[in-house]
Amino acid sequence: MTVKKIFLSEDEMPTQWYNVAPDIPNGLHPPLDPSTNQPMGPDKLSAIFPMNILEQEMSSESWIDIPQPVLDVYKIWRPSPLIRADNLERAIGTKAKIYFKNEGVSPAGSHKPNSAVAQAYYNKEAGIKRIATETGAGQWGSALSFATSKFGLQCKVYMVRISFDQKPYRKSMMNTYGAEIVASPSQETEFGRQILAQNPDSNGSLGIAISEAVIDAASREDTNYALGSVLNHVILHQSIIGLEAKKQLEKIGATPDVVIGCCGGGSNFGGIAGPFLRDKLDGKMIRLLGVEPASCPTLTKGKLAYDFGDVAQTTPLLYMHTLGHDFMPAGIHAGGLRYHGMAPIVSAMVRENLVETISVHQLECFEAGRLFAKTEGIIPAPETCHAIRAAIIEATKDKEEPKTILFNFSGHGMLDLASYDKFYAGALHDYEYPESAIADALANLPVIN
Amino acid sequence: MTVKKIFLSEDEMPTQWYNVAPDIPNGLHPPLDPSTNQPMGPDKLSAIFPMNILEQEMSSESWIDIPQPVLDVYKIWRPSPLIRADNLERAIGTKAKIYFKNEGVSPAGSHKPNSAVAQAYYNKEAGIKRIATETGAGQWGSALSFATSKFGLQCKVYMVRISFDQKPYRKSMMNTYGAEIVASPSQETEFGRQILAQNPDSNGSLGIAISEAVIDAASREDTNYALGSVLNHVILHQSIIGLEAKKQLEKIGATPDVVIGCCGGGSNFGGIAGPFLRDKLDGKMIRLLGVEPASCPTLTKGKLAYDFGDVAQTTPLLYMHTLGHDFMPAGIHAGGLRYHGMAPIVSAMVRENLVETISVHQLECFEAGRLFAKTEGIIPAPETCHAIRAAIIEATKDKEEPKTILFNFSGHGMLDLASYDKFYAGALHDYEYPESAIADALANLPVIN
Repeated sequence: MTVKKIFLSEDEMPTQWYNVAPDIPNGLHPPLDPSTNQPMGPDKLSAIFPMNILEQEMSSESWIDIPQPVLDVYKIWRPSPLIRADNLERAIGTKAKIYFKNEGVSPAGSHKPNSAVAQAYYNKEAGIKRIATETGAGQWGSALSFATSKFGLQCKVYMVRISFDQKPYRKSMMNTYGAEIVASPSQETEFGRQILAQNPDSNGSLGIAISEAVIDAASREDTNYALGSVLNHVILHQSIIGLEAKKQLEKIGATPDVVIGCCGGGSNFGGIAGPFLRDKLDGKMIRLLGVEPASCPTLTKGKLAYDFGDVAQTTPLLYMHTLGHDFMPAGIHAGGLRYHGMAPIVSAMVRENLVETISVHQLECFEAGRLFAKTEGIIPAPETCHAIRAAIIEATKDKEEPKTILFNFSGHGMLDLASYDKFYAGALHDYEYPESAIADALANLPVIN
Repeated sequence: MTVKKIFLSEDEMPTQWYNVAPDIPNGLHPPLDPSTNQPMGPDKLSAIFPMNILEQEMSSESWIDIPQPVLDVYKIWRPSPLIRADNLERAIGTKAKIYFKNEGVSPAGSHKPNSAVAQAYYNKEAGIKRIATETGAGQWGSALSFATSKFGLQCKVYMVRISFDQKPYRKSMMNTYGAEIVASPSQETEFGRQILAQNPDSNGSLGIAISEAVIDAASREDTNYALGSVLNHVILHQSIIGLEAKKQLEKIGATPDVVIGCCGGGSNFGGIAGPFLRDKLDGKMIRLLGVEPASCPTLTKGKLAYDFGDVAQTTPLLYMHTLGHDFMPAGIHAGGLRYHGMAPIVSAMVRENLVETISVHQLECFEAGRLFAKTEGIIPAPETCHAIRAAIIEATKDKEEPKTILFNFSGHGMLDLASYDKFYAGALHDYEYPESAIADALANLPVIN
């Protein structure tokens, strides 16, 4: 009889994160200070990040202990279940075995709290009273609101205006956890006021919201900034996904042939794929597959180069796949995947041909999500639909091949149902950029001497 | 070290439901045919229910096998976790141990699929192609939409107009699973058309929607009706909640001093409390506590009598606690608790003084729900907030008493966040009926000779 759900007990939960950075052949490029184009040390970053997090950001240790207070909060929902999607397998008629790691069971409904809880803890330890952050689709803002409430910190969320208006439930969730939320561009930073002065009806963007949160954090002694993806320490915290999944597969004597995650900033993919990289480097036949939207093809059509993480050019320069910091992705409903850049760690894995990439379209993803809901019950977030779509593609290439597929179910879609409505109503479309549009955006990359 | 989450493996999942009906001293009164006031046999009910379900409705067996195809669907989310609310305990400063059974992990987000899956299966077995039902808050409609999709049945949901307009996400969920949804009162039944003719802007009510679904089912050969609470077979299917919770508590060597559930139609309370009744009758010191809203005080202020289950008086007469079938409860946000009647099984347990009852107000419940979210992470449904409020009352009566409290976390609040917004905005109020209003409604009970 098929075991459908593979659980770990709480004492089997990993007590260390895995740092994949030292495994990457030829290493990572350091972040650069945009005013000098020289490597940026922890000292300059300490205006907005605590030193304990910066140590993780630069660490070359493979294993880093998870502090007990973080483990205590993780225990609210972790270890998360690994689930065999046998109903989906039957529906598509494949001999492949499909497993998904269900990160949707967290309080905020996605993998984001894995890093939010750690970041809240380290900031608390560093004596910080308040954290400023941005949120696009709302997943990260919800996660950090929850995490800060657990450690008694204040939380200020700059939420992209269009999401603020379209996703009132995400706001309610953050409100429930006690965070303060403001639509970005806001009147609360000089940068926000400038944008509003030019365009009072601005929809905002993730790039603008990041700028506002960074400016807020830099201007107050008691406040730091927290980022929900891209950076090395976020990928580190998310490694618990892959570490658990590995243990769970071992319990049933399985190893994955392919490990899949959707890629926005790279944290959920890096989190599930990272812990399998060592095995791959040691010769195991494991494919790592990153999936991105065709409308924001950072890995498949972007360039590997130094670029800013935000529109206002307030962040350090990161060496990553990018479409250019002023690339404006189409309004697809997988808001968490609408980002011009990519985690340097994921970018380096792609550079070294350790990760394959694929881009998929919005409509096929919603179709995959609906099939998943009908077969496995759970309605996936639009971002997660991308991973499901890729898993289905892998499982149907050769339906007779009994391969083992593992994908990261990064979040549920309970707060994204309006997007499904639009899909059912035929109001959604696929987007693809002409090569020239991407070339135009890439022409604006900063010049590094 | 405290174990926070107690899981059962899939092979520890109960394979039989527990029927509490035979345990109840002095038994249950049979349903009556309102046209004759005589007991109503399965033959007359078979127009809208399959015979296999009617056998369960009348059964005097204590244990009833769960069919394998039902177990296979249960496995998507069952056994559900039992969780120690230790963060909540610390926040309220009690020595009581609080455990909750998390039924919010189901695809529809509540305990409702436990019966929906069984009812879909039995109807499929009976050759039925289509099920008609009603939904108020949307939980039952979502559950049946999911369940029918698993067994390839069509599903038609009459959704109370005001919820149809206010809860678009519930509609989207049902849509995702492939159900057909119509606002009730609708143009699709003669009864609906009559009501719309009198009042085109009618908000509808659960009683009206039940009537429409029953009329739909009675008028079509291929269609049956399904009810999400109240009836004996629903309480039977929900017994899996209490059976699992009992096994989980045994695993850690605990027995509950008090078992708590909120009461709308009675299915989630009956489901968790029923399997503990035998122990109580055998002399164990276990209190069973049903919680209801002060604005719909069926158990605390209603009358035990024969009454209709719906406004149009289409249902059999059930012997239950009732506020009168034309009692119109205030517009509280715990829509699932706005019902004039109560499961005959729960009513009989109250009659025999085997169950204590308490009523609580809306605002204290939302306050309890928010505290729960901040401490335990999960945002509860407004109905579930009632159980949480009662658990907190029990845990704070004497904070030094190390009693063990078990409550049913009947559902999450991801699709109820608009209600929380209203609460935070100060737009919600408490309601209590003057005795005279209740007396007026009770004056309309049918006269049984």
